[in-house]
Amino acid sequence: MSQLDISCGLDFSVTPDLQACLTQALHSNFSFIVVPIVHPRFRRQHVLNTGKVGGFTRSDMILSPQDWTSRLVGKLSPYLSVDSDVPLIRQRHQDCLNEELSYCRGLGLPAIMLSLTGEKSNNLARILQSYYESCHHPSLIWAKVPLVNTNLRSVKNYEENDTSSNETWIWWSKFHERLDYDKRVGVVLEISADLPSQQLLRRWLGEPVKAVIVPTSIFHNNKKGYPVLSRAHQELVVSMVEHEAQVIVTGARRHKLEFYLQYLHRLWERRPNPADDPMLSYARGWEDYLQIPLQPLADNLDTHTYNVFEKDPVKYDQYQKAIAKALLDLQKKQILKEPRTIISNCTENEEFGQGDGDTEKNKRTITVMVLGAGRGPLVRATLNAADITNTKVKVIAVEKNPCAVVVLAAQARELWRGRDVTVIPGDMRHINLTPKADIIVSELLGSWGDNELSPECLDGAAGLLKPGGISIPSAYSSYVAPISSPRLWAAAKVAVSGTTVQHDKNLETLWVVYMQNKHDIADTKLVFSFEHPARGHKDHEGQEISDYRGLPLTDNRRSTTLSWIVEQDNVMHGFGGYFDCKLYGDEMISIVPSTHSPGMISWFPVFIPIKTPLRVQKGEKITATFWRCVDTRRVWYEWIVEIGNRITPLHNCNGRSSEMLL
Amino acid sequence: MSQLDISCGLDFSVTPDLQACLTQALHSNFSFIVVPIVHPRFRRQHVLNTGKVGGFTRSDMILSPQDWTSRLVGKLSPYLSVDSDVPLIRQRHQDCLNEELSYCRGLGLPAIMLSLTGEKSNNLARILQSYYESCHHPSLIWAKVPLVNTNLRSVKNYEENDTSSNETWIWWSKFHERLDYDKRVGVVLEISADLPSQQLLRRWLGEPVKAVIVPTSIFHNNKKGYPVLSRAHQELVVSMVEHEAQVIVTGARRHKLEFYLQYLHRLWERRPNPADDPMLSYARGWEDYLQIPLQPLADNLDTHTYNVFEKDPVKYDQYQKAIAKALLDLQKKQILKEPRTIISNCTENEEFGQGDGDTEKNKRTITVMVLGAGRGPLVRATLNAADITNTKVKVIAVEKNPCAVVVLAAQARELWRGRDVTVIPGDMRHINLTPKADIIVSELLGSWGDNELSPECLDGAAGLLKPGGISIPSAYSSYVAPISSPRLWAAAKVAVSGTTVQHDKNLETLWVVYMQNKHDIADTKLVFSFEHPARGHKDHEGQEISDYRGLPLTDNRRSTTLSWIVEQDNVMHGFGGYFDCKLYGDEMISIVPSTHSPGMISWFPVFIPIKTPLRVQKGEKITATFWRCVDTRRVWYEWIVEIGNRITPLHNCNGRSSEMLL
Repeated sequence: MSQLDISCGLDFSVTPDLQACLTQALHSNFSFIVVPIVHPRFRRQHVLNTGKVGGFTRSDMILSPQDWTSRLVGKLSPYLSVDSDVPLIRQRHQDCLNEELSYCRGLGLPAIMLSLTGEKSNNLARILQSYYESCHHPSLIWAKVPLVNTNLRSVKNYEENDTSSNETWIWWSKFHERLDYDKRVGVVLEISADLPSQQLLRRWLGEPVKAVIVPTSIFHNNKKGYPVLSRAHQELVVSMVEHEAQVIVTGARRHKLEFYLQYLHRLWERRPNPADDPMLSYARGWEDYLQIPLQPLADNLDTHTYNVFEKDPVKYDQYQKAIAKALLDLQKKQILKEPRTIISNCTENEEFGQGDGDTEKNKRTITVMVLGAGRGPLVRATLNAADITNTKVKVIAVEKNPCAVVVLAAQARELWRGRDVTVIPGDMRHINLTPKADIIVSELLGSWGDNELSPECLDGAAGLLKPGGISIPSAYSSYVAPISSPRLWAAAKVAVSGTTVQHDKNLETLWVVYMQNKHDIADTKLVFSFEHPARGHKDHEGQEISDYRGLPLTDNRRSTTLSWIVEQDNVMHGFGGYFDCKLYGDEMISIVPSTHSPGMISWFPVFIPIKTPLRVQKGEKITATFWRCVDTRRVWYEWIVEIGNRITPLHNCNGRSSEMLL
Repeated sequence: MSQLDISCGLDFSVTPDLQACLTQALHSNFSFIVVPIVHPRFRRQHVLNTGKVGGFTRSDMILSPQDWTSRLVGKLSPYLSVDSDVPLIRQRHQDCLNEELSYCRGLGLPAIMLSLTGEKSNNLARILQSYYESCHHPSLIWAKVPLVNTNLRSVKNYEENDTSSNETWIWWSKFHERLDYDKRVGVVLEISADLPSQQLLRRWLGEPVKAVIVPTSIFHNNKKGYPVLSRAHQELVVSMVEHEAQVIVTGARRHKLEFYLQYLHRLWERRPNPADDPMLSYARGWEDYLQIPLQPLADNLDTHTYNVFEKDPVKYDQYQKAIAKALLDLQKKQILKEPRTIISNCTENEEFGQGDGDTEKNKRTITVMVLGAGRGPLVRATLNAADITNTKVKVIAVEKNPCAVVVLAAQARELWRGRDVTVIPGDMRHINLTPKADIIVSELLGSWGDNELSPECLDGAAGLLKPGGISIPSAYSSYVAPISSPRLWAAAKVAVSGTTVQHDKNLETLWVVYMQNKHDIADTKLVFSFEHPARGHKDHEGQEISDYRGLPLTDNRRSTTLSWIVEQDNVMHGFGGYFDCKLYGDEMISIVPSTHSPGMISWFPVFIPIKTPLRVQKGEKITATFWRCVDTRRVWYEWIVEIGNRITPLHNCNGRSSEMLL
């Protein structure tokens, strides 16, 4: 269902004249209709009992085969109680349920709706799992729960509401857990007149809400007599539809059907415009779509990837600002620290720092190395920054990707003619250049900061930088927040890497994904930090240790233990992972949600799954440990999560499932 | 290590003159020696630093290569604290630990001992997992924990003891959990002067205790001055050795080494003789060895299997008694119910029931059908019972296995000449015989009762029995108890079925196994019951429903929910499964531990694993639901376990991993 247009359905089972209502619903352009599934053996209902699948006998009421497989949602008999305590009822209802399911299978319905009425759903989930195991074209399962358990609600206040709303979330959540968070299983929320707190409503946004049921009873009439919703209900419906829920109108017909439909469409069209964030349009279609992180060090990027990244409207602006600041700071330093050098070079040093008036020869040339120059965006940023700050720069572009080197060399020849740009093909870790750089500029960060091996590359290139030189970026950090997302977890579990599905590997891997259908269980916290130029280990006497090349011996292994207190019952499926980065001075780039650089599109976050989702209760503590491991050939992460007495397996032990190659 | 002889080791690291002690230990015939592993870089110890792996330079002290790989246990440096809160210590100790591990790898030691000193072991477990991932011939890991955490113990009473003993069990248990209950990882218990309660000691019998450490300080001197242990310590050591633990003597040498060794050997030899239970000798060598349950219905048994089962010294005696009772009861019934029939047949009916005096023609012939006669043990039991009760029987032996039919026919020709024995080849469910049987006798039970499809076979053969006839067995039930057994769970997980390891399938399968290294978490409870002849379903008017052959329409599907309150912290790995069976009257056979038929060897219990072991705390409730599912071609079990908020996946959904073919 497109997010651009609201998709509305009608549950017309409440009206006595089903056929007439069905006709009307189709004529009113409702997208789909919810019909009761009653096995032909029990001929009490008439709609589905014509014996002619794919059509009705009355001439005014024809359903095409496409309608049957796309516009009808089957509703299982609500009285079925397969988790009854009475063995006989359990067994009989199970037989009935299986008959209804196999009737749905015969009809080829796109979805089947059933009602959850309590926390007990072991047998129901078991029967549905068998249905999925034995069915070639299984329908989606829509499990209906009330937003608030009205049976419980005696006192009408928010706290009570929240308790009974939490309860129905638990019905759904346990049911879904019993089906191993199958992505074919979604929830349908039956909206009530009273709504629970925002916190509880937000939690539902992490669940796969397939539809919201809006009873006609919660509409009230506006001045002109048309049915409208309260402000709170409007917001709820719109936010659910934004998360791809459909809308089902149900209940007694108090108005012409078209009125409800027209109102809902107007509501959707009138919704507050999404902010003019380029990310929103850029990410459309990529919501919750998992991608394997790039390995730009091990693999050479292709032209498509460069095309995408170079389009970022924000990132290179930030780099340009940072480079400009660094250039200015170096100029100032030159005045302060190297007066004698400057005196020997020029006679007008009192004019230094004023910029415009300087002649070329008055200025020392500042050497800027762009490490991993790709097709040159940072070279451009450097040249722009030099122009703006009126600095004389020598740019050395180092690039290991031979294809990109060709493009760089062509640009140096054609575009940057007259500028001092040198292209050096090679791996920054293994080349030696003189003169050393005053500034090294790189963009080696992945969605989780160091996960594209920026620390290893920059430490390996430390010999290219003058002592006291500037690295842009100068520091970066990774962050995580525990999240609930059945959708992302189920997607990761069955994601195909290569030709085979490898459940174990898939849940020990970082996934790059524009996360939409998720809920943050707790705050985002810092994981690992890195600084450049990096300081080496110190020996017992406090001296920095150097390696055979004289570079500081750094240790980029890390381990961090984080904990969070949970404020609401939830199920944890993994972590959202982010980074921020200090380029230079106060010039930052960030994809941490609270500080996200507006409009920057280069990075989607990462989803870090856990193998076994963990149910957490309000007040419990989540403790997670992350390790960044390094050996001579590769870098990888391991992680483990503990909640109370429960502990996940160690993820990605020895990098068995995912690694970044050095 | 053989269970017949106690295997003792020596931890001599406490004495200053290692080499002398090593010589003495080997000369005293200790099986193995625990030696500190110190990397050659740190030359503080001398034993392992000769640079000549496989031998010592001193002529009196030669270790052969075999000794190195079988008699030396490496002890990692006890100060290593890789789970320290201080990042620097953590990292440095991790480097040291890895060096010691790789030195052990170089030496090829059979086992490596390390000390657990607290609940925190995430990083330790992680490093060991990496060691296992990257090592071709990994050593066993022995994790040493004190039986009682003496650091905690301020007050010396049992309750305190139990708290601090529970604590060290948790250290071990969490460590083992973090290693996914790897079967290469065992525990070494350091015995203290004070012992915790029996309940806590029993729990350790479910753990893979590789060795018990007996400090010389807990020996005291007997009248003759030799070192001896207290009664309680003796029992503990013997019970541990019975569970295949070895013994390590450690601490200050207060006596000649031989004295300790000799005492321990005497202790083992003097232990109370194992009861003269044929099961014990029969099961020797099969302890904790997993077997896939037989499918005698789908597969024909082979001669080896018949050989084993026919040897049971108890089962056929019980059958014979049951058949005899049934024959006598039928005779009595004949007198009571069929006087007229009998009158018409004979004139001396007043003498009926006295037995000896009856002539052949006085007695009605009782038809006994042996269904699934195999090679004839139940035919023999029937003929014996007839002889004992002086009854005239017509025996009809039905058998589907063509090979067994050959043997049966030969016996009928040779052995049972003159007796009325007819052999009918065929499947009891699909044959029709007249006259009908007064008694049907069968032995179709598996280790979990109905799991070899006795209900389906006997219901299918119901047409062979006269109305009101007797089925032997007349009823049977399956039972389960939740158990802790890292060993069985780890064995099931990696068991090879066919050529590939299928973790998922293996943990959704029943395993037949003589369980030894397990601990019952709670009582044994009834799961499913079946009776024969079975009653059919009743319709709305209370009439039994029949199938097309006129047989009662039975429903052998079952589902049962059981719950247990846990009395001690534990980890649940699955269930022990058993059955009992009422043959006739009060003649029973049982493999339920509390009522096990003495000496009956035909059935080992079943182990029913759960996919994810669940940690349970004292007072928590375990709730398990079992389903027996039936379709037209097969029967299977499904199960699910809940503890508090945690729930296992549904096991064996739709029989995907294990099934019994009809």
